[in-house]
Amino acid sequence: MATIRGVVVSKQLVYDPTGAKYIKIDVVEERELPGPVAAFSAQDEQTAQLMREVMPLVTQIVRSLPFGGGKIAVPRLTLWLTDEEVEVFGDIDVGDVVLISVEKGEIRVRPEG
Amino acid sequence: MATIRGVVVSKQLVYDPTGAKYIKIDVVEERELPGPVAAFSAQDEQTAQLMREVMPLVTQIVRSLPFGGGKIAVPRLTLWLTDEEVEVFGDIDVGDVVLISVEKGEIRVRPEG
Repeated sequence: MATIRGVVVSKQLVYDPTGAKYIKIDVVEERELPGPVAAFSAQDEQTAQLMREVMPLVTQIVRSLPFGGGKIAVPRLTLWLTDEEVEVFGDIDVGDVVLISVEKGEIRVRPEG
Repeated sequence: MATIRGVVVSKQLVYDPTGAKYIKIDVVEERELPGPVAAFSAQDEQTAQLMREVMPLVTQIVRSLPFGGGKIAVPRLTLWLTDEEVEVFGDIDVGDVVLISVEKGEIRVRPEG
């Protein structure tokens, strides 16, 4: 079983060509971006020392760049529910955390807690 | 409880900014379009007779138009699953029918049958 921790980031009212109303709900997963990997082979003690001094500066620069060691939101689930279906499911709002469990032959979506 | 009968219409390989792979699965619901509604009040027997003769022709013309009395596909569910999650859930392909049940505090997705 795999469980995804998703966050509701958008709730939108949309219409189909017949004019029927749907609530479109977008759920994303927040993922940490891997930071810069410090891959160097210290040739001698002096070089290693220099690297250790430079690395914090490099990390700081990379973090200040867009997509530099921060978080990204990956879309995981989008639902289009009618008013009646939203009423059955219960209130759901942007910022809410939902758990998506993937099991054999079944995917379940429920609010956290 | 509300149950939606969905059809998998698209399976796509997508990548997030870190290069991680996801299988994007689109599920739609097929809905019948309401046909033309014959709303007329027969003033007399002769008019009523004329209407009855004309209606089949009108219906035929409307059906030949785009969106005329046919079926439309309404998006209902989109999932982005990793390879591992697809493996846990089981094979799913375009054309497959999935049932989406909306219950209090839970939405469940499973293949039909």
